[in-house]
Amino acid sequence: MSNKIHHTAVVHSSAKIHEGVEIGAFSIIHSNVILGENTYVGSHCELGIPTKLGDQSALIIGSNSTIRSHSIFYESSTFGEGLMTGHRVTVREKTTAGKNLQIGTLSDIQGDCSFGDYVRLHSNVHIGKMSRLEDFVWIFPFVVLTNDPTPPSDNLLGVTIEKFAIVATMAVILPGVKVGRHALVAAHACVGKDVPPQMIAAGVPSKILGPTSNIKQIGNSNESAYPWPKHFRRGYPDEITNCWDEEFQ
Amino acid sequence: MSNKIHHTAVVHSSAKIHEGVEIGAFSIIHSNVILGENTYVGSHCELGIPTKLGDQSALIIGSNSTIRSHSIFYESSTFGEGLMTGHRVTVREKTTAGKNLQIGTLSDIQGDCSFGDYVRLHSNVHIGKMSRLEDFVWIFPFVVLTNDPTPPSDNLLGVTIEKFAIVATMAVILPGVKVGRHALVAAHACVGKDVPPQMIAAGVPSKILGPTSNIKQIGNSNESAYPWPKHFRRGYPDEITNCWDEEFQ
Amino acid sequence: MSNKIHHTAVVHSSAKIHEGVEIGAFSIIHSNVILGENTYVGSHCELGIPTKLGDQSALIIGSNSTIRSHSIFYESSTFGEGLMTGHRVTVREKTTAGKNLQIGTLSDIQGDCSFGDYVRLHSNVHIGKMSRLEDFVWIFPFVVLTNDPTPPSDNLLGVTIEKFAIVATMAVILPGVKVGRHALVAAHACVGKDVPPQMIAAGVPSKILGPTSNIKQIGNSNESAYPWPKHFRRGYPDEITNCWDEEFQ
Repeated sequence: MSNKIHHTAVVHSSAKIHEGVEIGAFSIIHSNVILGENTYVGSHCELGIPTKLGDQSALIIGSNSTIRSHSIFYESSTFGEGLMTGHRVTVREKTTAGKNLQIGTLSDIQGDCSFGDYVRLHSNVHIGKMSRLEDFVWIFPFVVLTNDPTPPSDNLLGVTIEKFAIVATMAVILPGVKVGRHALVAAHACVGKDVPPQMIAAGVPSKILGPTSNIKQIGNSNESAYPWPKHFRRGYPDEITNCWDEEFQ
Repeated sequence: MSNKIHHTAVVHSSAKIHEGVEIGAFSIIHSNVILGENTYVGSHCELGIPTKLGDQSALIIGSNSTIRSHSIFYESSTFGEGLMTGHRVTVREKTTAGKNLQIGTLSDIQGDCSFGDYVRLHSNVHIGKMSRLEDFVWIFPFVVLTNDPTPPSDNLLGVTIEKFAIVATMAVILPGVKVGRHALVAAHACVGKDVPPQMIAAGVPSKILGPTSNIKQIGNSNESAYPWPKHFRRGYPDEITNCWDEEFQ
Repeated sequence: MSNKIHHTAVVHSSAKIHEGVEIGAFSIIHSNVILGENTYVGSHCELGIPTKLGDQSALIIGSNSTIRSHSIFYESSTFGEGLMTGHRVTVREKTTAGKNLQIGTLSDIQGDCSFGDYVRLHSNVHIGKMSRLEDFVWIFPFVVLTNDPTPPSDNLLGVTIEKFAIVATMAVILPGVKVGRHALVAAHACVGKDVPPQMIAAGVPSKILGPTSNIKQIGNSNESAYPWPKHFRRGYPDEITNCWDEEFQ
């Protein structure tokens, strides 16, 4: 097996490019980058931008990853295998992610963030510095996770989104808030207080509307739509959903 | 007449490039693309990205179109003549549009969508899968048309925006909602119920505030601002506004 | 000293490139551009796009500026020294800015706008035409400054943000509104009326919640967080904060 690097790409000779990597036209790979096996990098990308805000460690992209065109990653971040991005994502330094992170088109990760395994960020999500997202979290379009309680200041308080929680379209999570396990933040909510596990938060400012189990599946009014892993498993491997079977069925 | 393709552009030999087409520097045209006469494609674009989610049909761009720089289109979508985009728009597969669609800078069309004639999308609009926008619709910045009533799920319900309706800045339209003809969704509204024709919806969650005819023109307190085609015709050809004359004057 | 222009960059011979300028790979500099001394332009940028909506004057970028990758500027705009942008910003014609403007990643300035000195725009901000932002203003992510009271129309009314005011995440400022000196617009607010100086506006639609002095610093409940220049000075030169000392301490 060999690499497939477009002849217009600008790849620094110090970058570590593993077997089976493909790099598209007009992309730039800086020196402090490690690309895992079988990873695809689309056109017009820029990976491994140097920054004084990092710790001089490499940008590490796990194997079998897909980085779509026009995306930008800084050095000093690490992603597990199976990273998948949309187009024109931006990821700053000191971000760490488990496996199978998905980052939608236009999404912007500001750095100093951590992601568990199988986190799903939809399009145009803004993840402020010091955010912490646990395994299996879902974030929908135009959500912003903030971090500054008294802007502008240097007193940053990151947001925590616990396992399996869902933040719906255009919600804002205010600094330091914790969204509990399996909780649901409704579309267009502005959340200033912690959301207890398995509860719904909605409104501006948000209020707790009750348990997520009150929400029924579309076309099946007898079955709750939450916890969502009971019925939605698209894109998760069997090894994962087999564990869910024990927990949710 | 001949084409004007920048020498740095990467144009696949199978792409069908009609007369008078101009393609900017560092742009990529994949094989499954048809560019109509006199169409302009700016720099750093990528047109016709292959996808298994399409139907293998071409990306068809109508004649006299303008696609500004850094824009991305997948294969399996069709646009009528006079398409005009801002910069860095993203358009996925299985989108169909009539003539004179405008797509503002940063806007993201997720695929499986349909647009009538003369639809106007302003900047940074997110059009979820299965959305349907009829002729002469206006969508303003940071609007999101959603599609999943119980995220995450596979039960998608698209949004419908009927003829001449207006959705103002940063509104969210929830799944399956229909915004009626000549209706107005106010800025920052979250709309969970159908909006009747010619009515105003505002708030989070939205309520019906009354008929759009209550809103007067700025500087002319005797004349209603709606239906807007009575007084606003910039950018529409005479053949269109002549029909409006019969209907609205 | 000499310039460092990547060999893949496309730089028009009429562009005026001062000493110490660096231009990244795959960037395009059109003819009607003046780049001040020691200015850095990242990769994949396009500067000085011609437009009939301008006045044929040049795009002027002050000395010691940093324009990060994938950014787009039109001709007929002028920026003072020390401009600093994130990635993929878009700036249209007839924009004027004082010194040390910061424009975050993805932000979109629509043209016909004016900025004082030391204005800070965070990521993905949308500044509508005819906006006016005075010195030391802060705008946080996903804020939209609008301009059309009865969309669509030609009766545009720009927004004014006075000195030291702060507009927090995902707020919308409606057309013609003035946000007063040192005022604070809360996250996710929709502001339809002028905000008096040093007051807080919050909610959809916004209400005045009281004076900003009621908000205490995190970890220091005896000290007000506002006016913010009393305690936050990161990134401002001594010559500026020395003046603040007289005013705020």
